[in-house]
Amino acid sequence: MSPPKWHLAHTSWFFETFLLKPFLHDYQTPNEHYEQLFNSYYNGVGEQFPRPQRGLLSRPTVAEVLDYRAAVEEGMRRLLATGDHPSRDAIAQRTELGIEHEKQHQELYFTDLKYSLEINPLAPVLWPRLQSTGGATPALDWQHFDGGLVTVGCTGEGFCFDNELPPHQYFLQPFSLADRLVSNAEFLQFVISGGYQQPQWWLADGWALVQAEGWTAPLYWRRAGTGFTEFTLHGPQPLAPDLPVSHVSAYEADAYARWAGARLPSEQEWEWAAAGAELERSLRPGSPRYHPRAAGAESGVRQLFNHCWQWTSSAYAAYPGYQAASGAIGEYNGKFMSNQLVLRGSSCVTSEDHARASYRNFFYPRDRWQFSGIRLARSLHGPQGTQDDTL
Amino acid sequence: MSPPKWHLAHTSWFFETFLLKPFLHDYQTPNEHYEQLFNSYYNGVGEQFPRPQRGLLSRPTVAEVLDYRAAVEEGMRRLLATGDHPSRDAIAQRTELGIEHEKQHQELYFTDLKYSLEINPLAPVLWPRLQSTGGATPALDWQHFDGGLVTVGCTGEGFCFDNELPPHQYFLQPFSLADRLVSNAEFLQFVISGGYQQPQWWLADGWALVQAEGWTAPLYWRRAGTGFTEFTLHGPQPLAPDLPVSHVSAYEADAYARWAGARLPSEQEWEWAAAGAELERSLRPGSPRYHPRAAGAESGVRQLFNHCWQWTSSAYAAYPGYQAASGAIGEYNGKFMSNQLVLRGSSCVTSEDHARASYRNFFYPRDRWQFSGIRLARSLHGPQGTQDDTL
Amino acid sequence: MSPPKWHLAHTSWFFETFLLKPFLHDYQTPNEHYEQLFNSYYNGVGEQFPRPQRGLLSRPTVAEVLDYRAAVEEGMRRLLATGDHPSRDAIAQRTELGIEHEKQHQELYFTDLKYSLEINPLAPVLWPRLQSTGGATPALDWQHFDGGLVTVGCTGEGFCFDNELPPHQYFLQPFSLADRLVSNAEFLQFVISGGYQQPQWWLADGWALVQAEGWTAPLYWRRAGTGFTEFTLHGPQPLAPDLPVSHVSAYEADAYARWAGARLPSEQEWEWAAAGAELERSLRPGSPRYHPRAAGAESGVRQLFNHCWQWTSSAYAAYPGYQAASGAIGEYNGKFMSNQLVLRGSSCVTSEDHARASYRNFFYPRDRWQFSGIRLARSLHGPQGTQDDTL
Amino acid sequence: MSPPKWHLAHTSWFFETFLLKPFLHDYQTPNEHYEQLFNSYYNGVGEQFPRPQRGLLSRPTVAEVLDYRAAVEEGMRRLLATGDHPSRDAIAQRTELGIEHEKQHQELYFTDLKYSLEINPLAPVLWPRLQSTGGATPALDWQHFDGGLVTVGCTGEGFCFDNELPPHQYFLQPFSLADRLVSNAEFLQFVISGGYQQPQWWLADGWALVQAEGWTAPLYWRRAGTGFTEFTLHGPQPLAPDLPVSHVSAYEADAYARWAGARLPSEQEWEWAAAGAELERSLRPGSPRYHPRAAGAESGVRQLFNHCWQWTSSAYAAYPGYQAASGAIGEYNGKFMSNQLVLRGSSCVTSEDHARASYRNFFYPRDRWQFSGIRLARSLHGPQGTQDDTL
Repeated sequence: MSPPKWHLAHTSWFFETFLLKPFLHDYQTPNEHYEQLFNSYYNGVGEQFPRPQRGLLSRPTVAEVLDYRAAVEEGMRRLLATGDHPSRDAIAQRTELGIEHEKQHQELYFTDLKYSLEINPLAPVLWPRLQSTGGATPALDWQHFDGGLVTVGCTGEGFCFDNELPPHQYFLQPFSLADRLVSNAEFLQFVISGGYQQPQWWLADGWALVQAEGWTAPLYWRRAGTGFTEFTLHGPQPLAPDLPVSHVSAYEADAYARWAGARLPSEQEWEWAAAGAELERSLRPGSPRYHPRAAGAESGVRQLFNHCWQWTSSAYAAYPGYQAASGAIGEYNGKFMSNQLVLRGSSCVTSEDHARASYRNFFYPRDRWQFSGIRLARSLHGPQGTQDDTL
Repeated sequence: MSPPKWHLAHTSWFFETFLLKPFLHDYQTPNEHYEQLFNSYYNGVGEQFPRPQRGLLSRPTVAEVLDYRAAVEEGMRRLLATGDHPSRDAIAQRTELGIEHEKQHQELYFTDLKYSLEINPLAPVLWPRLQSTGGATPALDWQHFDGGLVTVGCTGEGFCFDNELPPHQYFLQPFSLADRLVSNAEFLQFVISGGYQQPQWWLADGWALVQAEGWTAPLYWRRAGTGFTEFTLHGPQPLAPDLPVSHVSAYEADAYARWAGARLPSEQEWEWAAAGAELERSLRPGSPRYHPRAAGAESGVRQLFNHCWQWTSSAYAAYPGYQAASGAIGEYNGKFMSNQLVLRGSSCVTSEDHARASYRNFFYPRDRWQFSGIRLARSLHGPQGTQDDTL
Repeated sequence: MSPPKWHLAHTSWFFETFLLKPFLHDYQTPNEHYEQLFNSYYNGVGEQFPRPQRGLLSRPTVAEVLDYRAAVEEGMRRLLATGDHPSRDAIAQRTELGIEHEKQHQELYFTDLKYSLEINPLAPVLWPRLQSTGGATPALDWQHFDGGLVTVGCTGEGFCFDNELPPHQYFLQPFSLADRLVSNAEFLQFVISGGYQQPQWWLADGWALVQAEGWTAPLYWRRAGTGFTEFTLHGPQPLAPDLPVSHVSAYEADAYARWAGARLPSEQEWEWAAAGAELERSLRPGSPRYHPRAAGAESGVRQLFNHCWQWTSSAYAAYPGYQAASGAIGEYNGKFMSNQLVLRGSSCVTSEDHARASYRNFFYPRDRWQFSGIRLARSLHGPQGTQDDTL
Repeated sequence: MSPPKWHLAHTSWFFETFLLKPFLHDYQTPNEHYEQLFNSYYNGVGEQFPRPQRGLLSRPTVAEVLDYRAAVEEGMRRLLATGDHPSRDAIAQRTELGIEHEKQHQELYFTDLKYSLEINPLAPVLWPRLQSTGGATPALDWQHFDGGLVTVGCTGEGFCFDNELPPHQYFLQPFSLADRLVSNAEFLQFVISGGYQQPQWWLADGWALVQAEGWTAPLYWRRAGTGFTEFTLHGPQPLAPDLPVSHVSAYEADAYARWAGARLPSEQEWEWAAAGAELERSLRPGSPRYHPRAAGAESGVRQLFNHCWQWTSSAYAAYPGYQAASGAIGEYNGKFMSNQLVLRGSSCVTSEDHARASYRNFFYPRDRWQFSGIRLARSLHGPQGTQDDTL
């Protein structure tokens, strides 16, 4: 986990490094050490400060980071006011990337904060009250998709990241997708029935992890009497059966799906279903809310966005024809294309602008500190029929 | 690494556990403890003996393992002689699976042996002489493929594993494939030019591993004077420039490809190219040979089989519609479908029967003790053109 | 490393836990969670917050910790004003222990701070200027001690810790003690001559550690051009040859001693020599100083106190007849009596009240973040004469 | 654990390296690689083969190791037959050391074997029957010693290791020593009463280890129904209440002692008591026995030798005036003088020649695979009286 001030400094660093230093000729950095200190992982920029030691940095103070931010904002204002800059196009592209990058860190700010609040015995909360979670979860239904040769990847006018490109044709077999996320009540059945103690549901790596870590429930569930509480950014709450299960690893999502006689969707299946769905926008009026809500009673595939990210079965990899940018900025997405899985959708703390069908989030299958949930899928092929079921 | 006798015992255990115990009514195991001792990873069968301690087992002796083998063979002879067994089909299927399973362990026997011989200061060899490696490697050429909607997966009459099923349609973009494997001479250029010290070529996880392990060359290369030797099952040899590079991890394969302006093929690309190629069968006459050979001068895609496995960019995952068998035998392939990559082709120590276009081998990207090499691919799409190359 | 605010909170916790809660009947803690949060290691008091996560606690803030401190101080004032408390003697004893405990944490505050400043690329300093270090170091001389049956342990009137008790008789062989600490210039010879690369000087555990950690010099030395700088609480300084070497582990101290044809003193030898020496008190006028000084030119054993702690060859163990207090307060010293070594003397950041001949500091032999230096000793016995020196 | 053949090869290596190579001018080693392969830890001789990989060495075979042994024995015969060798004295000394070294490995051979037999599901035994263990254990009694200025270290005529030298004066406070070892029945009370779950009995490092390893009983105890079995070299046996407890770490020994209101003896106390005791020689007639026996009913301090090694509270350190031999042979004992504790006495698998009062065995406090037991001691000083027992 990185401290909050680190996120603020790092997003400022991004603008300074990729815009102010190369393009604003008289720019003076407030502190030349920040280049190393707030570089997250760009080898092309130089050395990085070791991540596990970020918590040991009492300097710069929050006030100094805010000064840094102000200096960068002032520099950006001056840069963008230069109407006839010879690198005008690159500046525009990178400014947009910097803004999108910052939105990603705004989400990480919330999930890092949730983790550090939960381990703190003082039990601090971000916002004291959690408003009603909506009505009862309707029974899970399946929506059928015929598949065929479809287009995957970003085709719209707006911004998208390089990992959503290029759009390309993909052949989908017929499939069904659950019309809502798996609920806490449903996942609780898996827990109660001994799912975490039965190897037959688990991928081999997942089973090894469950043993090593002693996992018996999602990250923020705590046993309380005969039931569970769930820690939220509004403090600990009795486990709400109608809310979607959240903060599960891909291994838990996969094991649950197998137990439930289903599977996780591929990212292409998810995208195809979402592209055809009406975009359910979050309404965030009234008091702040940092937690998913229950599925509504309307028909169709719901909870695609604004509740929990949804693990897919797809390894995070380059699309056919993908080409990373050259230079350090090319490290943004491409170098992480190993050992991680794609998550689709968006969560209750994601920037709303990031809610699009082609967006590809990615984490290691063991990661649980994001708002990550489960949407089930099914193939329409029957069993292959050649397998041996005798034993 | 498992000791040789363990492989022999485990392949016998497979026949005993999945055939003799369930189907041969009067079968008596020579030792009931073998069930746990020689179970590799089947949770459905019960406890397993911890893998890192296999080297500590002085009992059973090699002689006792050979007795076990003889008892299992005798049992199999009796079982197969029962013409009208009510489970005749299952017996036939599982016997075939047991034979194919054993061939896989015959390959592991050689690669485990290579590892333990190499670390032994006595420098034992498996076979003293290594015959001529063939002529000079011709310049690397690219073969074009149009792609389109193709069929992937096993469609033939013969045996295949469940992970090759079901055959399904897949849409391929146009691509080019290198017509031979990357040679030692080519990989040496990457090493000499500082490739292992330059983060820009590496996936993030690969770069972290290279740093942590101190890798500077493929697994069996050793610096000797101004050049390198390579350890083989025929003893250490001066590095042969014309032979294919072998014993590289997927990270090294990927880094090399990026450095060379190419990429690794997907498993579907590889299969499509191999399906159309004439199967180059190994000729293994004369004295034994446990090492790859140089590419010949003939045209077309060569060295698909019998030299080195070829890393692909594809995560090892279920094909659409894949269904694992129920029971313990279903643990054979399905539960390993996370964090591993598919390798295609076959190596100089693979059973020749396993050389087929649809065969899917899989290892973790960090693994290097198999005969794993590099075949390059290229997309025919140009660069995306929307990227920022200024920095 | 613990953050500064943690030390302040923990020393307050000590007074609250061992004095206010048991003896001040109407005491109300500002926060009941602090009991767990600021418990360092007292199992008798209950659960402890995990040490590696201390850096993740953004709450309580520094201001809240200062409030906690104020509440504890107010409580202590009230408790001590109760003239006729039935536990008056225990209160007096524990108050004294709390004060001495706090002095120990004041020292840790400086050494933790030094560590976190050094790793910070901003290179913050505690106090900008470092005044002159004194003159040239005189040649090292040896002072002879006859030994015999002496008394070891605290016999004075003032406070001492339970681990200094009971005083007891100890038989010392004749020995010589270096009259000053090993200097940077002397230790530099060991470094330059390859001492960190030559196993013959090292204890087996030390050699393994040097290999694993890649140590090539004391903790705060950095190579700069052809020489070294040393990081201090006054910022990085060119390596001062006349100052005592500091921040070495016991393994480095022991290896240096062996290289120099000497050995480390036992704690009894050190105490006997110090008991007879005139106490050299530090003078800390003028601007603050957080670094040792050079040895003066006066005769006799110098630099016993106020420069660097001095590693001894003695394992930290109970004195004959030692009895730990019962209850949680008995965890103060006794439970650490394994795997650690005794250091004697005091350092430039130790409370002056702790400078006494019988004081026993203790750390693991691998620890380097204290101001720990080297005093040499020699036995007056010749070599045993029975050993085989042929090889 | 090292395989049996390694012990045989290493003891042969010792004679070859320290005697045949330097002193037998025409000696030809059967294999020059053995120098590295069978070097345990002598840096002065050169590189060593990594200990954890010893189990991977299928070559040399047992037969080849026996050939090596024969060649070394033949060489030793020739060397010792050279009556007028100019290095005659060194040869005599080293030959004696080689013999004593080999006796140490004979003991390790049994304890390594016990470990590897126990983890083997086949449950092999070294010798099938375990004869009667003797009668009932008499009540534990204490023998008083006045202490005073005594002589510690080897003073006899026969061989002793350099770490037993030089003999020197040591001042002992009065103490009492238990007249027999702690029995299984007594240790079982500690287990049953929750001793492994109560931090108050444990050293801090020991408690951390108990938690990390999940220890709940001595190494070879296994729960069976409502009781325990104990694995022996004669196979698993019901826990025999009258036998001494064995295979405990120093942490368990220390925790038991604290729980029992006693402490571990110092090595000097043990030696002084043993020096005055009549040496109880083992009688090993009839069928082989590799397990301790119950204490007899005779009076006086018993079970000093031939049952279990006895942990002392003394860190393994140099005696005053200790001087290691120069050269590689000086690595024999001296470089291990950190982080280990001294054990005194001898065990049921120790060579009888090693049973002497001054012998110093040493292991890390966490080690349990030796026959290590517990003898209690007590100080005769009362409690210090200055401690605070209120809480």
